[in-house]
Amino acid sequence: MIVDCHGHYTTAPKALEDWRNAQIAGINDPSRKPSPASLKISDDELRETIEANQLKFMRERGSDLTIFSPRASFMAHHIGDFEVSSTWASICNELIYRVTKLFPDHFIGAAMLPQSPGADPKTCIPELERCVREFGFVAINLNPDPSGGHWTSPPLTDKQWWPIYEKMVEYDIPAMVHVSTSCNACFHTTGAHYINADTTAVMQLIQGDLFKDFPALRFVIPHGGGAAPYHWGRYRGLAQELKKPLLKDHLLKNVFFDTCVYHQPGIDLLTKVIPIENVLFASEMIGAVRGIDPETGFNYDDTKRYIEATPNLDEAERRMIFELNARRVYPRLDAALKARGK
Amino acid sequence: MIVDCHGHYTTAPKALEDWRNAQIAGINDPSRKPSPASLKISDDELRETIEANQLKFMRERGSDLTIFSPRASFMAHHIGDFEVSSTWASICNELIYRVTKLFPDHFIGAAMLPQSPGADPKTCIPELERCVREFGFVAINLNPDPSGGHWTSPPLTDKQWWPIYEKMVEYDIPAMVHVSTSCNACFHTTGAHYINADTTAVMQLIQGDLFKDFPALRFVIPHGGGAAPYHWGRYRGLAQELKKPLLKDHLLKNVFFDTCVYHQPGIDLLTKVIPIENVLFASEMIGAVRGIDPETGFNYDDTKRYIEATPNLDEAERRMIFELNARRVYPRLDAALKARGK
Repeated sequence: MIVDCHGHYTTAPKALEDWRNAQIAGINDPSRKPSPASLKISDDELRETIEANQLKFMRERGSDLTIFSPRASFMAHHIGDFEVSSTWASICNELIYRVTKLFPDHFIGAAMLPQSPGADPKTCIPELERCVREFGFVAINLNPDPSGGHWTSPPLTDKQWWPIYEKMVEYDIPAMVHVSTSCNACFHTTGAHYINADTTAVMQLIQGDLFKDFPALRFVIPHGGGAAPYHWGRYRGLAQELKKPLLKDHLLKNVFFDTCVYHQPGIDLLTKVIPIENVLFASEMIGAVRGIDPETGFNYDDTKRYIEATPNLDEAERRMIFELNARRVYPRLDAALKARGK
Repeated sequence: MIVDCHGHYTTAPKALEDWRNAQIAGINDPSRKPSPASLKISDDELRETIEANQLKFMRERGSDLTIFSPRASFMAHHIGDFEVSSTWASICNELIYRVTKLFPDHFIGAAMLPQSPGADPKTCIPELERCVREFGFVAINLNPDPSGGHWTSPPLTDKQWWPIYEKMVEYDIPAMVHVSTSCNACFHTTGAHYINADTTAVMQLIQGDLFKDFPALRFVIPHGGGAAPYHWGRYRGLAQELKKPLLKDHLLKNVFFDTCVYHQPGIDLLTKVIPIENVLFASEMIGAVRGIDPETGFNYDDTKRYIEATPNLDEAERRMIFELNARRVYPRLDAALKARGK
């Protein structure tokens, strides 16, 4: 079985975007504010957008199950206030839930949180609880920068985040640390902001001692960990300067990297530098990079090929990356699979 | 000959820091503002700080000449206004000039600019001119984020930067894109802000078409190009989505990466992914990561070892990285060496 731990619903029906645009217009003009009930998307529309896109590629490429969450760049937590984010997160998570009901063998949910700049993270708890308890979601996406590129929230090690961590531990769910769209002109969303956020999160976790307080907390750093594996010597050295334990003890019991690295040498480095038990298969398909690599003739984001081709892995290690690590890091995924006899 | 294109004067006498602290105190209390003339550092003090540190390691490790600039994290362009930055840059550059006069075979200068948030970059031109014309400096350090982690300046492709680019082309000098200390608690200075800035700069240059307007402009991206080489497939794919030419044409005629990557697998990736003519030897010694790697027994920042050990290079390619590329990217370095018969 091959589990892709990182997929977003980037192909949702146009009605969703239209509803969001109306919601945004309603922030300054309440007469235009749409009701959640006014969003009408049929099961057939959901089926079409999934079957013609994510599921088609999953079948072609040979992955089985995707941990599926709302479109990351559309979370846009910087827009409006908590109430705006709350309504929007609720709608987006419900669509994910419906996809998981329509395609239970192929998709399982991860929640978007109703974060909002300056809002106490504990305001996210009710939506988190709903997604886990009612929708069977197995993880959350946590945005370390709800401002969208201005980085006005405290680091992930700050106590303001603890209510979310306490709930993650209670439910035994990991968080993927994933920012949303950048509204800072310096940062291209998928080319700079995403990767920078990954790097930033790793360094925040090295600086702090969060896992002393939360030994069971688990984070997945997407996009291959940002710059961290490429600069692993730098991070080992900085941890040493900061008088921290070795990263394998300080970080790697709680932090995992996905394989959204879109060329062979990157996956070769990742699987050489990072212990295999910390690497989770992912493609972020259909995401930022949708084209075909002229150097290979295959899609850039067909990351399964790189994992199959790298000389660093034997078959047992490939199985860890493709399935076993995900079942360990996402225990609710494992439980859901076991309940289906898988 | 081995040229290290990235060294900062991180070991300057304590009097420099004391003067700076007095200058900062003087921003709010003009009675405490020190005169530049009040900073007294003897040639012997300069010699001592260099001979016991940078030069000692250069001799031990076998590099010959360092392109030397003021301490990057101390530039702190976010402090005070243009006048504060101007006085500070002037003092720091003069110290570098004195080091280059004391050790002409081992150090050649690169200028810190008197950048200040919101100030027109053209205000930096007089100091830039002085450093090139009077001090024989061969490059500048350009800070894409003088705010220190808030990213309030426009991208490097914006016309506000053009006066500096015009002067760079006129003098035929490259700029190393190098931020300074982070005053944003989210970003550790050397573990997040530096690396993020490198990644951000690469993506800004991919998004824009700056080199159509400035075909002779050259940037050196430090710290191995941030995350860019590790995610080279992502960047090739994003350029493709943006309908840009191949990166070898769109970027690599003008953009170069240094080798400040502090472990063997990182240098292996860099030298595999990036054309060798775009890679410049550097260590940033003595810099962010000063310890000894317990996995190797050698200093993390002894990057020469990684270049010597990588199987990706033959001797001709090593010579390009160690010397020839630097002489091409920094023509004033080449001219200075030739004038000395080297």
